[in-house]
Formats: sequence, C-alpha cells, structure tokens
Amino acid sequence: MIRVGIAGASGLAGGELLRLVSQHPDLELTFVGGSSNVGRRPAELHPGLRLPFGGLTIQPVTDEVADRCDVVLLATPAPVSASLAGLLADKVAAVVDLSGAFRIHDPELHARWYPRVARDTVLTDRFVYGVPELVADRMADALLISLPGCFATAITLGLAPLVDAGLRLDTVVVDGKTGSSGGGLQLRTADLHPLRDGAIAPYAPAGHRHAAEVRDFFAQRKSEAIGRLAMSAYGVSHVRGLLASSYVFTDQEISPQELHRTYVRYYKDQPFVRVRRHTETLIPVPDPQAVLGSNYCDVTPLLDDDGSRIVVLAALDNLVKGAAGQAIQAVNLRFGLPQTTGLTMQPVMPA
Amino acid sequence: MIRVGIAGASGLAGGELLRLVSQHPDLELTFVGGSSNVGRRPAELHPGLRLPFGGLTIQPVTDEVADRCDVVLLATPAPVSASLAGLLADKVAAVVDLSGAFRIHDPELHARWYPRVARDTVLTDRFVYGVPELVADRMADALLISLPGCFATAITLGLAPLVDAGLRLDTVVVDGKTGSSGGGLQLRTADLHPLRDGAIAPYAPAGHRHAAEVRDFFAQRKSEAIGRLAMSAYGVSHVRGLLASSYVFTDQEISPQELHRTYVRYYKDQPFVRVRRHTETLIPVPDPQAVLGSNYCDVTPLLDDDGSRIVVLAALDNLVKGAAGQAIQAVNLRFGLPQTTGLTMQPVMPA
Amino acid sequence: MIRVGIAGASGLAGGELLRLVSQHPDLELTFVGGSSNVGRRPAELHPGLRLPFGGLTIQPVTDEVADRCDVVLLATPAPVSASLAGLLADKVAAVVDLSGAFRIHDPELHARWYPRVARDTVLTDRFVYGVPELVADRMADALLISLPGCFATAITLGLAPLVDAGLRLDTVVVDGKTGSSGGGLQLRTADLHPLRDGAIAPYAPAGHRHAAEVRDFFAQRKSEAIGRLAMSAYGVSHVRGLLASSYVFTDQEISPQELHRTYVRYYKDQPFVRVRRHTETLIPVPDPQAVLGSNYCDVTPLLDDDGSRIVVLAALDNLVKGAAGQAIQAVNLRFGLPQTTGLTMQPVMPA
Amino acid sequence: MIRVGIAGASGLAGGELLRLVSQHPDLELTFVGGSSNVGRRPAELHPGLRLPFGGLTIQPVTDEVADRCDVVLLATPAPVSASLAGLLADKVAAVVDLSGAFRIHDPELHARWYPRVARDTVLTDRFVYGVPELVADRMADALLISLPGCFATAITLGLAPLVDAGLRLDTVVVDGKTGSSGGGLQLRTADLHPLRDGAIAPYAPAGHRHAAEVRDFFAQRKSEAIGRLAMSAYGVSHVRGLLASSYVFTDQEISPQELHRTYVRYYKDQPFVRVRRHTETLIPVPDPQAVLGSNYCDVTPLLDDDGSRIVVLAALDNLVKGAAGQAIQAVNLRFGLPQTTGLTMQPVMPA
Repeated sequence: MIRVGIAGASGLAGGELLRLVSQHPDLELTFVGGSSNVGRRPAELHPGLRLPFGGLTIQPVTDEVADRCDVVLLATPAPVSASLAGLLADKVAAVVDLSGAFRIHDPELHARWYPRVARDTVLTDRFVYGVPELVADRMADALLISLPGCFATAITLGLAPLVDAGLRLDTVVVDGKTGSSGGGLQLRTADLHPLRDGAIAPYAPAGHRHAAEVRDFFAQRKSEAIGRLAMSAYGVSHVRGLLASSYVFTDQEISPQELHRTYVRYYKDQPFVRVRRHTETLIPVPDPQAVLGSNYCDVTPLLDDDGSRIVVLAALDNLVKGAAGQAIQAVNLRFGLPQTTGLTMQPVMPA
Repeated sequence: MIRVGIAGASGLAGGELLRLVSQHPDLELTFVGGSSNVGRRPAELHPGLRLPFGGLTIQPVTDEVADRCDVVLLATPAPVSASLAGLLADKVAAVVDLSGAFRIHDPELHARWYPRVARDTVLTDRFVYGVPELVADRMADALLISLPGCFATAITLGLAPLVDAGLRLDTVVVDGKTGSSGGGLQLRTADLHPLRDGAIAPYAPAGHRHAAEVRDFFAQRKSEAIGRLAMSAYGVSHVRGLLASSYVFTDQEISPQELHRTYVRYYKDQPFVRVRRHTETLIPVPDPQAVLGSNYCDVTPLLDDDGSRIVVLAALDNLVKGAAGQAIQAVNLRFGLPQTTGLTMQPVMPA
Repeated sequence: MIRVGIAGASGLAGGELLRLVSQHPDLELTFVGGSSNVGRRPAELHPGLRLPFGGLTIQPVTDEVADRCDVVLLATPAPVSASLAGLLADKVAAVVDLSGAFRIHDPELHARWYPRVARDTVLTDRFVYGVPELVADRMADALLISLPGCFATAITLGLAPLVDAGLRLDTVVVDGKTGSSGGGLQLRTADLHPLRDGAIAPYAPAGHRHAAEVRDFFAQRKSEAIGRLAMSAYGVSHVRGLLASSYVFTDQEISPQELHRTYVRYYKDQPFVRVRRHTETLIPVPDPQAVLGSNYCDVTPLLDDDGSRIVVLAALDNLVKGAAGQAIQAVNLRFGLPQTTGLTMQPVMPA
Repeated sequence: MIRVGIAGASGLAGGELLRLVSQHPDLELTFVGGSSNVGRRPAELHPGLRLPFGGLTIQPVTDEVADRCDVVLLATPAPVSASLAGLLADKVAAVVDLSGAFRIHDPELHARWYPRVARDTVLTDRFVYGVPELVADRMADALLISLPGCFATAITLGLAPLVDAGLRLDTVVVDGKTGSSGGGLQLRTADLHPLRDGAIAPYAPAGHRHAAEVRDFFAQRKSEAIGRLAMSAYGVSHVRGLLASSYVFTDQEISPQELHRTYVRYYKDQPFVRVRRHTETLIPVPDPQAVLGSNYCDVTPLLDDDGSRIVVLAALDNLVKGAAGQAIQAVNLRFGLPQTTGLTMQPVMPA
C-alpha cells in the first residue's frame, strides 16, 4: 500500500481526493491536513463521505508528515502550496501539487498571474508540469509534480493533437464555461445560491491565468506553435463540470475527416481521453454532464462550414480530471501502477 | 461470472444498470433488450457510457434470452414487466423486476393503482418483494424478485425500525420530494426543461401508489402496525435523488435518545443504511445530494419539541438505491455474493 | 405621492421593495436605510436595479427619517425591527414591519421562537398582524402593521376558508418547500451554490416558527379551530418561490365539489388569490413558478380518494406576496389606494 | 387602443407577448391564433397567465383576422411566418415577425440557413429588419417589420458602437450562451429536464444562423466593417436569458477609457440599453439574471490587458428584449407611442 497524505482536506478538491483515495485499492490514507478545521473528522466536512478514514482528524501540516506518507497531495491555496512544497520536497517520494504555485515556469508570467505567490526558483525548475497524457514518462520518476488547472487540462488536451501534428495555430480564442464548484467554498456574497444560480457570470472576461499555463507549456514543448492565445471564462448555472472551447485560426488546411482522424490516432491508447463525434449520442457532445464523477476528458474537434476555423471542444469534471482524479492518475504513474487503477468509475448521468 | 441481461436498456434505470454492471467484478453483460431503439448500441443512448459492452446492441426480448443469461433485470414499464416475467420465469436463475407490476400483493390495491397491469396471480404470489435489508434471507433463493419503488424504499427503510420495535403508528403522513429523473424520459411538455426547472410540481398531491406498496408490505409483516398512511409527492428542481418525510403520530412515548438508538441498533449491520444525526455535517442531513451516485439510504429520525410527532427523513438516489443499485444488491444476495460487491462507490458531491 | 422609506435596503426583501416602489405610480422613495453598506447607492447592491433612485444612498435609520417619510417599511432582521418600530411609531403615518418581531402576540410562543427579540408589550399589542386579504379593514387605519412570514402567508390563505367555514381542523401537518432566496444573503457555507444547489435541505424538519404565527392568528380569530398543527420546512433547489402543503384531518365531511366551491366563493373578490384546479393548465398547479415575480397566491384544495384528508396547496413568490409585494399591498390599503396599485405585474414564466 | 393579434400564441414567445400585451396601457388583445390548441383558452397553455383575455380562444389565422387587428405579431415558426406575412401584408397597419423568415436579405445566405423557408422576394425587400435602437426611424412607418433573433439582438447592440465609430473589425469570434427557453417547447428527448439540466450543450458549435443576420445587417449598414465573423452557441443550465460574447480583433488602437466612453455616448438616449462597468455591482456584469423579465440589454465593453482584443459582452432576456419585448417596442415605435410604454418593468432578480 502506498501511504497518502492530503493537505487541504476541507475544500472541494480535498473532498474529492478523499473520495478517490477511499475507492483506490492500493492507496492508504495516512494523513489529512489543513489549517482550518483542525481536530475535526473529514466526514464532518464532506457530507457524502461518512467514512471512518481510520479515525484520522485534520491536523496542521509539519515536516513530520513525511514519516507517515509516501506521497503528499497538496489541495491547498497556491501560497500555502508554495511553502508546503519546500517543507516536504525530498522527504517524501512524491509531492503532487494541485494549486497554481508551480505551474508557470516563465517568471514574468508567473509574477503577472500569481503576484502573491513567492517561490523558490530551484524548486520550481524541478517540478514536472503537465497533463499525465502528455508527460507520462516524466512523471514516472518525478519527485515533484505540478498539475495543470482544470481549464488548462481541457485546453491542453484539446490543442495538443494539433500542435504535435505540426500545425501553426496563429490565433486561439478560448471560451471557458464552468460550474460553481470551480470557485471552491470561500464565503463570497456573489457565490451564494440566490445570486449564483441562473447566472452566466463573466468572472474572467478578458484574460484567465490558466491561459498563461497553456502558453508556457506549449512554448516549451514546441516554440512558436501558438501565436496569440486569448481566453475568457464564465461561471454557468450548474455545479460540476466544465467545457473549454478553443477557436483556432490557422493558415494550414485540414479536412474534417483528417481532423477527426488526427485526434482519434493521437489518443488511441489513452484510457481517459474520449474523442467523440458531436452527434454520436442523444445529446450534443462533449458535454460535461457526460463525464460527471469520472476521470474522462471528452474531446471533439470540428471545422466551420467554410473550413476557416477549427473548433475544439473539451469537457471534463473539474474536480476529477481537472483536479483530484488527475492527481491520482499522476500518483499511479509515479508509483508504477496502471494509470487507471482506482479511476474506473463511469460517469454518473443524469445528475 | 454471472451472466446478466437487461430489459429496458434505453431508459434511465436501464442506463444506471449498465453503469453498475460495467463496474461490477462478478457480472457479465450478455444481453441488452428493449422494444424501441432495436439495433442501436447502448452508448448511443447513454451519453456518459461510451463503452463497447461487448458489441451488444439492443434486441427484442424473447425467451431465447434465457439461454444467455443467469439473471434478467427488468427495467421496463409495468405492463411489459408483467408479460416478460411470465416469459422468463423458471427459465433463468432469477428475474428481478424494477417496475410496479408485482409489488402489491393485495389484488384490490393492485387494481386501484395499476389498472392496466394484468398479471398472473400464481406468478405474483411467487415474487419476493421488499428492500433487501428487510428480506435478505428470502432473496437468497428467490427465483422472482420484485423491488420496491424508489419512494417505497425510502419510506420502508424509514418506518421499519419503528414498526419492528412494536410501535403502533396511528397516522403516517408521507411527503415525498424527488428530482426530475424520477419521471423518466417520456416526452411530456411539462417535463421539458423550461417548464420543469424551478418547479415545485405537485404531481401526486392526494395519493401516490408507492404508499400502497408500503401499506401492503407492512400489513403482511405485522398486521395493524400502521393505521392510516397518506402520501403526497412533488417534483422539485434538481435531477437525481429523493427525500421521503414520514410524519408519524403515535400514542406511545419515546425519547429522542431512545429513538436515535433504536435506528442505530436496527441498521448497525447494514452497509447501505446510514443513520445520521441531523446536524452531523456542514449541511442539514439527510439530503439526497449526500448520497448521489451511491447505493446509500440516509435515515434520520427526529422528534418534535413537544414529543408529539416523530419525523423520519430518508434520502436516497432514486436511480441507485431506488432502482438499479438495489437491483444489483438483490443479485448479490441471490447469488451469494457479499451484498456490497460492485456497489462500493462513494457519493459524488457536490454535483 | 406617498413618501416611502425602506430600512434594510441591502437585503433581498429590501431589493424587492425597491423594485416595487420604483414601479408604483403613487409612491415616492425618500429614504433608503441600513446599517451595512452606508453611503452606497442601492444600484451597487441590486444588480438588476440600475436606477438612480433620486441619488439616495444608504443611511443609518434615525428618528429624523420620520420627517421625510409617510411610511417606513422595515425589511430588517427581527431584533432591528423591534428597536426601529419603537423609534418610529407615531412619528410616521405607518410603520410596516416585514420581520418576525411583532408577529406573535402570545408572549410564551414569542419567547420560544424569538428568544433574542425583546419588544415593548404595549407596542406589540398595537400591531395589526395578518395577510391583507383577511384583515383588510383593520389595516385601513393601522399605524403599525406586522406582516406574516412567507410560509405563514401561504398557510393562512390556505386554511382560512376552512376555518371560516366552521370546520374543526383536528390535525394539520404542514410541509413547506422553499427556494434559496428564503434564506437571504447571509454568508453561510451551506448556502454557497455548490452545496445548496441540488439539495433537498431539511432545515427545519421538526418545527418552524411560522407555524407558531399561524396557530396564534387562528387562535385569536376562532378559538379551537385548529387542534394540533405541526410543520416542517425544506429548502429545495431553485431560487424564488415556495409551496406550502397543509394536510388536514377533520371529522367533518366535505365533498370535492363543495370544497372547491368554498374556496372559490371565499376568494372571489380577492385580486391576489387565485383558486386553481390542479389540472387546469399544462403543468400541475399550484406551482410557485407560475406566480414568479407577481403578488399572486395560488391555492388549490384537494381531497384524498377516500375523503379522509384535505390537502391544501398554496404557492407564492416568497419575495413578493411573501414579503415586499404584501408590504406594498398593505401600504395601498393603509393609504386608501386600490389594493392592486403598482402590483399588477403578471408572473414571469418560465424563468 | 391599438388592436393586437398574436399568431403562435401557444409557444414561449407567444406567452410572453400575452404577458406584455396584458400589461400595456394602449394595447388591446383582439385575436390569439395558432394551428395547434385551437379552441383552448390561452390560460390553459400559460400557467402563470390566469387571465380572461376577453374570452378569446386560439383560432386558426385567416385573412379575416385583419378586420379585427391593427397589428399582428407573428410568433410562429419561420415557414408559417413566411406564409402568414403574405396573407396579412397591407391588410393590417403592421405585421411584426419574430421568426427568421425575413431576417436575411442576402438570398444565398438565406437559402443556406433557412433552406425550407421559401418567401416572396418583393415582400422580403419591404421588411424592415433590425433592433429598434438602430433603425427606429425606419420603423415609424414600416408596414412590415422583421425582428432580429435573440442572439443577433445582443451581438448587434454589442458591435454597433464599434462599427459606427468607424473601426474595422477584422475578426469577430462570437460565443453565445443561452438558457433552455431559447429552444422553445418542442418535444425532444435532449430537452427533457434530466438531460438538459446541468448541461453545457454545444448545440451549434461551428456556426449559428444568427451570425448570418448580423453579417448581413452590418454589410448593408457599412460595407467592409466586419471581416470574418464566426459564431458558436451553447445551451447552459438555466431557463431564461442569454449572454453573447464578441471577441473582436482589430488593428486600430483604442484605450479602455475611450472604449467605455464610446459606448456610453452611443447609447445615452436609449432607455433599454444599459452600458455597465464589469464590476459596478456585487456580481460581475453583464449577467442575464440582472435583466430577467425586463426589456433591458446590458452591454459591457472590455479590453484585454495588452490591448490586443476587445471583448464585448451583451446580456438580455431572450424572451423579452430577444423576442416579445422587442416586438412591443417595435409596435410602440410604429404607432408613435413612447418607446417604453408598457415596458417599464424592472428585472426580477434573484430568480
């Protein structure tokens, strides 16, 4: 059994980690940490999870945690992750950070989007960043893993087949739509149910930091692959799941058939990416409700009538493939388990 | 492997059976049946379940199905179930019916609530009815199993500890609230999203047939246990999950502590019934969102301030513990597997 | 023009008062008060209401307010209302309180449900309480008006025809279902969208203070009319609108026809109460979505099959007929205007 | 009184027309037409509108209708509108069509997007198309008025200040998000509540016919103003209201201040367009919930950090400003009434 600690166990991603660890055959929960709710049992904070969790209660994270864990999952705010990563690096076999603290390697971009997150440059350089599908080999022996943001995961999985096929993406406009769970459980008036329900909330209409991750990642993977990438993000009126639409303008031509085939081939060995035709089932897909609760990312590439624009749609459950599920997937890769171990749950739909 | 056939695979309960069978280590899907959508693959009808299902397509149900299945699960409308049960009885090791065709043994009550469902009396008498928790022993060798309705499951699990403790329940008023998935996928204008969303729809305000099941069941278990039982049911504005509130008036006195203890003791060995205190977590429970996607039924007994009324709240996922999950649970019991096999998934919350 | 002041203008009821006053031909807003948000314009707090409101900003309520107002509407928490009513009584032509401070005349009941709301006994006795439909004559010259709670309004309008017809209601079980706007905009984790959406939240499962109002009101109107009255309340997954179901047990017999006629006759001259047949339109009614944004209360009386139970359903918009609309209706009555002035807006459905 | 007939009174836009006509001081409903539901009263079909409507029942539309009406509003499907317009043209003072039958003047574009809507070319040329704010003068004596689609209204109001300021918009990417009421009440499985709720449904991911209207309109207004315009549309999980995001790429520079001022000046005399700053109230705006039930269109222009992209957000209630409200506004203009007559209702929020 791999001994797992969770920091930030009170939040939504923390709760989802608890759910997935409890369903995983090879993981054993040995620590639950947090700065609030110290002394409380996880079940008090996560109404669905009425599990004993070995009697564990939430405790502050100290370096002694390393004695009890093989891996620590950080579902903490970025500034907290920045400091915990320093505390635990090299003391456990792996630190997996779900926050934005170590995602952007470019210092300027990082400072622009995470002005309050100071971090150690040497440490930062050691973090492996990326969706497991694209950097699986690097994760196998990574001591420090930084997982992409929920939108960044969807966008990256959506664009990678194009980039890796050698297309030059002159302009990419990303429109992201997410449910309210994307905002966590902070107490903000605008997130109370009466004001958040029924909303189309333009919370990041002219720029979103997940776009910076994506730019930074592809710039390192293949310089000049993407010209301009502009993103806007909206909160819509459901709870769980997101859809990222990438509108791609390129001078290179591609037929619809070729486009679809490129994606199918690219992901043919990836158990968690489902390349879907838009009309293959009784609702238009991809739709995040069709991945709810699962670790799937559904991807559909399309072409405008006149071939002038590629539209890539990618849907995922922001708390699973966009956070906790992807973290477990990374742990599986890191510890040599089959990628799907403990992650075989099918989507719960309708919900 | 136990070979499983599903009739009625196009509907919501059918889809949920597909999900659960695909996640079950000891079940093998060998047949998917239906009268509509013949020839289509299940994945076309269930957007979340993009699984090959062994290449099976939907086929009409004939008695040849018996050759391929050890158990057939009927997720069909009651009139269809009534005829399929006759077709398959004694040809497979077990028929499990999720419809209302064989739930009510009292002929008058049956005729009142299922006027269009003719059925064979001898066959009817052979059906074992009840929530698995209360009739587990009878399920072990039942050839024919009729599962309670979703509300009936919640109400029965809510009232059984009182009845079996010997209380006489003079008057029980049941108020049931369910999400839209309770109504299935029939094309009705009132169930289109614009009219159904935001509704509190009093669809059965002065009587509901699930109450008849409950009365009939308890009358057989313990005559005179319940005096009057009146039910009303409402559709509220979410998709999955129901809450049944039973307001119980009795002359016998019981303290809040004793009440809670009675329930805890009664269900202490039942893995799927969670007796919960109303305030034990950060939302008031039971709340169906805290069981979403799982086979749990959460039960909370309460007492009015002045002790004059017992309030029993029971929440479950109508498609799981109220339908498909309970069916798998019955199959587990019938075939001697641990009750929880394939049903250990934790609730997906928030969703 | 009648000069109107609003205290508690930041909250949901305050916002709704602003909406209705701005649409009223004979009312002029002369003061907006509150203890928080002092100095801010109402439009900053109410995203829909981008109106100048005569340049008014939120100011603390002092007795000088009386110089500027003919009537002050208190949309403040009960303890604040208790003190403001004392401050303003007899200084303005009318004080209309929307809180629970002065609803219950019975001191013991008041202390039980509002333990933290001390109030002046003499002042309390001067308050006229009740839904305008039932106490219109007393409102015509009332200096102090206390409006019923949202649920109390629905329950009272639902039961009054029975009580005033002379029926003895032995047992009444009330099940109330409301949207999230019923809980206001206080910052509570359980009310954040991810946890509140999809919920059936049993927030008052074994007793609700609005039942105390109803009992107190009918006891004064007709002693012994109601034997036992027990209430439970639930938050369901939409924003605006409530449904109160009253399950009435009585020894007296009444036919369905007689029952319906009793209600039709009783409310025939009341513009805001619509007595509706359950199946008169394409969704089952009453349903709060069919009154959304309007001052209507829809009422449907039904009888169980066997005549053993009367079911009275009453639906209203908790922010309009359950709060702000009813306040304006009271102001109309108090100042001799037609009851419907400024309140003729039709329901916005679907929404 | 202006005598108004409504064709297509059973649908959602028809219901909204009924609501608005009933609240309008100068309009008198003299005819309600439809091909389905003949003989039924409007109140049976519109649960919120329990109004007598002068005893009118739904009747087939014939040319005799012209005798009873000064204006006929067509809330009918495009093929029906195409034929009714021919029937009624020049027989009534005005025909106002809410469908897409006569929106696109370019024959090729029309054939591409409305292949099944044959129409008379001469008649088509006589139709005045456009949002009232931009073509008010032409509406004053128009016999035939074709109103823009709901998305087209939002996009056009969003882009007009830029186009009319002389900017050349090289590329415009429009992402539209709408609630389920945008799809009407046709019986489609995908629109049943269980499948539609919680969805982000990419129903028109690679092209939407409202974009063709917009292109056609601006091409006539100012040739070459817009280079490429590509649109995608999504159904999100609420009922009423839409948001259109226009991502504009231009070579011309404009500062954020100048941008905002351009819009404020442009719409300063327009009562229904509210130019709003993104953070001016407690939720990010524009958000369609802040215009619900009203005839407002809220518009917010923004600039990306680096000035490389203009983001124009426009929110409106698709059934009011996007359909019925705009129709009444057109009638007001046509008959010389103040534009806001009968349309002064404020948004109902939260809902």
